[in-house]
Amino acid sequence: MGKAIDTPALVIDENIVIDNIKAFQAHCDKAGLKLRPHIKTHKTQRFMQRQLLAGAAGITCQKISEAEIMADGGADDILITYNIVGSTKLQKLHALAQRVARLSVVVDNAIALQGIAQTFSNSATPLNVMVECDTGAERCGVQTPSQAVELASQIDKLPGLHFSGLMTYPRPGGAQSAATFMKETVPLLESAGIRCPEVSTGGTPDMWSAATLSVFTEYRIGTYIYNDRSLLHTGVTSEKQCAARVHATIVSQPTHERLVIDAGSKVLTSDLMGMFDDYGHIVGHADASIKSLSEEHGVVHVSPDCKLSVGDVVEIIPNHVCVVSNMFDTAWLLTDNNEFVPQPIDARGQVT
Amino acid sequence: MGKAIDTPALVIDENIVIDNIKAFQAHCDKAGLKLRPHIKTHKTQRFMQRQLLAGAAGITCQKISEAEIMADGGADDILITYNIVGSTKLQKLHALAQRVARLSVVVDNAIALQGIAQTFSNSATPLNVMVECDTGAERCGVQTPSQAVELASQIDKLPGLHFSGLMTYPRPGGAQSAATFMKETVPLLESAGIRCPEVSTGGTPDMWSAATLSVFTEYRIGTYIYNDRSLLHTGVTSEKQCAARVHATIVSQPTHERLVIDAGSKVLTSDLMGMFDDYGHIVGHADASIKSLSEEHGVVHVSPDCKLSVGDVVEIIPNHVCVVSNMFDTAWLLTDNNEFVPQPIDARGQVT
Repeated sequence: MGKAIDTPALVIDENIVIDNIKAFQAHCDKAGLKLRPHIKTHKTQRFMQRQLLAGAAGITCQKISEAEIMADGGADDILITYNIVGSTKLQKLHALAQRVARLSVVVDNAIALQGIAQTFSNSATPLNVMVECDTGAERCGVQTPSQAVELASQIDKLPGLHFSGLMTYPRPGGAQSAATFMKETVPLLESAGIRCPEVSTGGTPDMWSAATLSVFTEYRIGTYIYNDRSLLHTGVTSEKQCAARVHATIVSQPTHERLVIDAGSKVLTSDLMGMFDDYGHIVGHADASIKSLSEEHGVVHVSPDCKLSVGDVVEIIPNHVCVVSNMFDTAWLLTDNNEFVPQPIDARGQVT
Repeated sequence: MGKAIDTPALVIDENIVIDNIKAFQAHCDKAGLKLRPHIKTHKTQRFMQRQLLAGAAGITCQKISEAEIMADGGADDILITYNIVGSTKLQKLHALAQRVARLSVVVDNAIALQGIAQTFSNSATPLNVMVECDTGAERCGVQTPSQAVELASQIDKLPGLHFSGLMTYPRPGGAQSAATFMKETVPLLESAGIRCPEVSTGGTPDMWSAATLSVFTEYRIGTYIYNDRSLLHTGVTSEKQCAARVHATIVSQPTHERLVIDAGSKVLTSDLMGMFDDYGHIVGHADASIKSLSEEHGVVHVSPDCKLSVGDVVEIIPNHVCVVSNMFDTAWLLTDNNEFVPQPIDARGQVT
């Protein structure tokens, strides 16, 4: 560990970041998939630029406010995987389209489509619009291939819009189901005379089996850049490849079996990822468990022979790293000389 | 509802805020308790000032960084209910002590005490130090009255420090247990020749039964200013007294029984307060349930006859409002004219 930094702190090992970026870029290159990383995990221009330099085809954002900041950082091919609804957002989307080379959004319903159609009806450069398909994750998306074709036909007829393909976020383990949905939809589109340039899928849990499956052209992925405890738990990554760690100080030791750290839900968040009953993995202390959080306290249960005491700093691999990035204005990059360099998290807190 | 604001948004009804502040100030005045509101819920100078104007004796903060911002806003009597550990924090604490009339901290262990003792040993104005007692909440705090006396004796002997009393955060429903602990400790302190000026307790869940119980002098409370779903659920408040609501737009309606809103865990957080299996109360739609969250999506299960559709804006009372305030740089104050005025959340994200 390097020179002291105030805690709690989010510390990023950039060497691991670069390794993670390169490894999955190589996987996608070999698999014949375009890689379109989701910036939600790191929310920083610096790492977005690293992803593009390594060979990414463009980036994914979830909200316009994130996309604006990434455009400021040089992104010129941005897919916003979100239904854009509401006049303020539509105005911002229109302004953003004027300043990036290629902007794409998704829709899964006619009302959202109507909004973007009205906004872009007189646009010189058409907006790329994909149809979001629910292939089993039960979040957004049209429910059937025929609904996908119906929405694509509407897009295809609207001035100012360009139908640019199909998009899905499969449930973990659902790559085959997603492929089945898409393989049914693409021929239906062709029969209707509609070209489908891209079929985009994604997800970190299934990253190492990412493949075209004879239909996908593009893979979107976020967490892989840092990795986290959920991916450790499911065997997708190793502790060494976890680039982002929360440093926390032990501030209290009320009993031999209870410690309190200065990282609570304002840092680690309450996200259990549906798989944990505690709030992070303390590196090197497998027997310690962060059993409960209040905003600024983490209560850690330890065995009576645990050697940690007040003033010690621990490193925590978060359950879900994407939501943790969002809790800090600034992260610290760990240099080769074991020094800490502040790194603003440019798009933290961008929710609109 | 007033003019359109972009969603998701945190909207505060200031009239309700003022009512909530006045109602509990009146309760404390009648009960003979000093009121020391915790700013963690609102994190804004504006509401801190309202609390002081209404009669609060001072304020409570959890971290130095919060206290610095409240001092900037005019607070001159601040209690930081946290063990201050680490050289950066100790330096900041020393600097803060120079610019507020009265600064207090708590300790529950000898290592934390040693740090503040070294930092303040030559201080012209002594730092007020309380002993934190664990009276059943199982977070921080000494475990027994005799441990409290031992730590108080050490404080009492140290130059630059002033023992200013006992502090506890009781478990919900634990006011009597807390009083029993304190009633045992105070006479022990007196026997040791140590004066105990204050005995501070707190907590919103038991606010309406807050009483001196013949030992407490001060009450600390945060959530009461806004109220939230946890307090609705436990009967502490009513929907009308919930001052803070998240406005979210429906962006997708994949099936008749599923809607998706643009508020996810980056806004509502994953905090279930140990009492819910969903992520907030949608006002006026008791049959709708926010069943799952990803960062930017909330999946809402509704009955098939639900009238909501894409583009509609809903108001959500969060499970736990304190953590939601922390997710927004800016809230919106709802005026009497149904207009929205931006209100920076001054101390958002202050975790050190």
